[in-house]
Amino acid sequence: MQTKFILDEDQLPRQWYNIIPDLPGPMAPVVHPGTLKPVTPDDLLPLFPMPIIEQEVSQQRWIDIPEEVLDIYRLWRPAPMYRAHRLEKALDTPAKIYYKYEGVSPAGSHKPNTAIPQAFYNKQFGTKRIATETGAGQWGSSMALACQMFGLECTVYMVKVSFGQKPYRKSMMQLWGADVIPSPSDQTNAGRKILEMDADSPGSLGIAISEAVEDAATREDTRYALGSVLNHVCTHQTVIGLEAQKQMEMAGDYPDVVIACHGGGSNFAGLAFPFAADKASGKDVRIVAMEPASCPTLTKGVYDFDFGDTAKMAPISKMYTLGHDFVPPGIHAGGLRYHGAAPLVSQLVDAGIVEAKAVPQLASFEAAVLFSRSEGIIPAPESSHAIRGAIDEALQAKEEGKEKVVLFNLSGHGHVDMAAYDAYFSGELEDYEYPEEAIADSLAHLPKIEGV
Amino acid sequence: MQTKFILDEDQLPRQWYNIIPDLPGPMAPVVHPGTLKPVTPDDLLPLFPMPIIEQEVSQQRWIDIPEEVLDIYRLWRPAPMYRAHRLEKALDTPAKIYYKYEGVSPAGSHKPNTAIPQAFYNKQFGTKRIATETGAGQWGSSMALACQMFGLECTVYMVKVSFGQKPYRKSMMQLWGADVIPSPSDQTNAGRKILEMDADSPGSLGIAISEAVEDAATREDTRYALGSVLNHVCTHQTVIGLEAQKQMEMAGDYPDVVIACHGGGSNFAGLAFPFAADKASGKDVRIVAMEPASCPTLTKGVYDFDFGDTAKMAPISKMYTLGHDFVPPGIHAGGLRYHGAAPLVSQLVDAGIVEAKAVPQLASFEAAVLFSRSEGIIPAPESSHAIRGAIDEALQAKEEGKEKVVLFNLSGHGHVDMAAYDAYFSGELEDYEYPEEAIADSLAHLPKIEGV
Repeated sequence: MQTKFILDEDQLPRQWYNIIPDLPGPMAPVVHPGTLKPVTPDDLLPLFPMPIIEQEVSQQRWIDIPEEVLDIYRLWRPAPMYRAHRLEKALDTPAKIYYKYEGVSPAGSHKPNTAIPQAFYNKQFGTKRIATETGAGQWGSSMALACQMFGLECTVYMVKVSFGQKPYRKSMMQLWGADVIPSPSDQTNAGRKILEMDADSPGSLGIAISEAVEDAATREDTRYALGSVLNHVCTHQTVIGLEAQKQMEMAGDYPDVVIACHGGGSNFAGLAFPFAADKASGKDVRIVAMEPASCPTLTKGVYDFDFGDTAKMAPISKMYTLGHDFVPPGIHAGGLRYHGAAPLVSQLVDAGIVEAKAVPQLASFEAAVLFSRSEGIIPAPESSHAIRGAIDEALQAKEEGKEKVVLFNLSGHGHVDMAAYDAYFSGELEDYEYPEEAIADSLAHLPKIEGV
Repeated sequence: MQTKFILDEDQLPRQWYNIIPDLPGPMAPVVHPGTLKPVTPDDLLPLFPMPIIEQEVSQQRWIDIPEEVLDIYRLWRPAPMYRAHRLEKALDTPAKIYYKYEGVSPAGSHKPNTAIPQAFYNKQFGTKRIATETGAGQWGSSMALACQMFGLECTVYMVKVSFGQKPYRKSMMQLWGADVIPSPSDQTNAGRKILEMDADSPGSLGIAISEAVEDAATREDTRYALGSVLNHVCTHQTVIGLEAQKQMEMAGDYPDVVIACHGGGSNFAGLAFPFAADKASGKDVRIVAMEPASCPTLTKGVYDFDFGDTAKMAPISKMYTLGHDFVPPGIHAGGLRYHGAAPLVSQLVDAGIVEAKAVPQLASFEAAVLFSRSEGIIPAPESSHAIRGAIDEALQAKEEGKEKVVLFNLSGHGHVDMAAYDAYFSGELEDYEYPEEAIADSLAHLPKIEGV
């Protein structure tokens, strides 16, 4: 019984799949946060290099992956796909469970899939320095790695409370040569303003984004980089699903259901979009996004225009959102705590092509423990939401006495998240009530966008 | 330019290589710590199951790997071998550098290669529970994983200071279902004795071994497991070198020099022994063990009989040793802080088949940083000693203007060792003077073994 499905290096995809030309309808425009008019490429140029801006709106279905990017992808790609024989046995299910494993990257997650090309295009464009933000640290460490590989300077504004709580992620960034600044900082107007009001502010992702954006916008040599949500990020991540399609073929199976966790949408898009293309061509495949019940963007949010950040400095997109000033409870899957969702994913959910489900924190940890004890690999708390989804599908198959092929994305390992497991075992973790009032409150503050 | 050399699952070795029949001379006997006479299988039966005792002295060159073990090896094996193109470029060397990467196991190191078969043979033999010890936690977490896979209970005595300092390793063991007890504990006579003298004792590997051995020896359902030094451990690890031989063939190269770090000897033996067999058949290959300068067992120790543990409860073996009461300085490569060396490796060093070199702590971290910044992967502090050896060989090749093929073992990743990198970057780490007096002192206490 084969356990791993491994592609040779020469089967590494040579092109990313851009879903934009295959969307079920036209894309909504992105709106300038100041003028409330559609943004132009010139509006974005202080933040992003032109090749990235072009990709953001490209109508080209296949985008060549530059050789320089492939060279670095080869350090860990193609990534393995596994058949979870032991998990199936533990569940006593007739379902076949496959998982794509992205924890093999040097940073331990799928994030370098886009960090590497973002660094490459910036280098090519003449950028000397990248400013970005990070919460739990997965994205910051991936961007630090990518900048190191292309000889770019990198400054990461790290949410101050995480800077203290996640020292290992901070150390990884420093090892890869990045300058890590606890946010709010005195380096930016946005940071200083917060510190004046509250010198002990623990920071937030919203504040850190504002600092990184201000840093990039005010320095000629510097551009900004984002690890999720945007179209080009989703496109870069499609290497995951393109490889998985080949690996499912090796396995002689095709998934009935494809599952990934969903925060901003990047690992979800990465696995799902190539299968969404199959679905559009008539394949019978369900595609499921698993989000945390405490931050239920796709299941309880609205599909409307909203700011990408709390400080209302980032562009306005049409997306599923809980409102830009919704602050999710402090669950341990830090990477899934975002008020919005990738516009591309949102459009697919709105069109009924993608299903969304919410899972409580404890149920996701329960799934992670069962997975670790059967398959060995310790999953990141974010990825555990996908595992929960896969287990539930497999249990349903058992109940119905049906064969079913399940494929999910194990987006990262949990070696630097062991404190979350400690908290789970010690009984400190709890499920949060669905934050109905807070969501209603923040949904009352959506920007009014008309006539775009 | 190919970066990774990946074997299919059907190329996973089906047999381990046992070097005992190919040793340059007869093995010295193992001596009972009480009687000072050669041990018998019966002496060992309270500690180990019979199949392990038989492997310890087997004259069979090839030992079949049980199917049940192969099934679990497949979760991460065959492990990849890489060509370090970026490191070569950074060094501007004509040398070709290859590395075998063992950090892909669920525990992040080579240790499961022997933990899995040890758990299997114990299960087969009827053992219900394993007692073992761990210092930094690599071995304890691997044994916890292995016991989980075979449904054995697992108790790990973890050196108390590490229990506090390495919380992530402790959490991994708990996630995989092990009971982790800070040592010294009140669970054993050995532990209670220490606590009576010093209630705040930080513990030591020597004490933890004594506790685990006592636990196993006094409970009928329990056996003991050791993660290095012993013959069967070295044999199980040879999957590393056997795979690497096939992968070097894929690469169309053969190593001029094979390098691994050396603490107790297990990852070193794993990579080196299959190449030592090649060398015995006439191949021109150098084999180098890299040890820490602060615990220079192979380079400054003597080749003589000594106890395996500080408390003089473990069997006496002929090996390179710094004396059983030598306490190495607190370097961050915790896995290399052992006063002795595997008897099999010791015999090869004594016969001139294996070279040994010592490397100071700071030089090993310098190598680790260069490696992380060129190849991406963050190495464990132990493995960094091997990287230093490889870099030095490559720099020498550059100086001499020679082509040279270097192969080293990257025995584990450093994701749970980031505190050591922090200490390095903050300038807190130092090189220890060669502890000449301490070694002379402890060498004065070797047991007198005669007529065996």
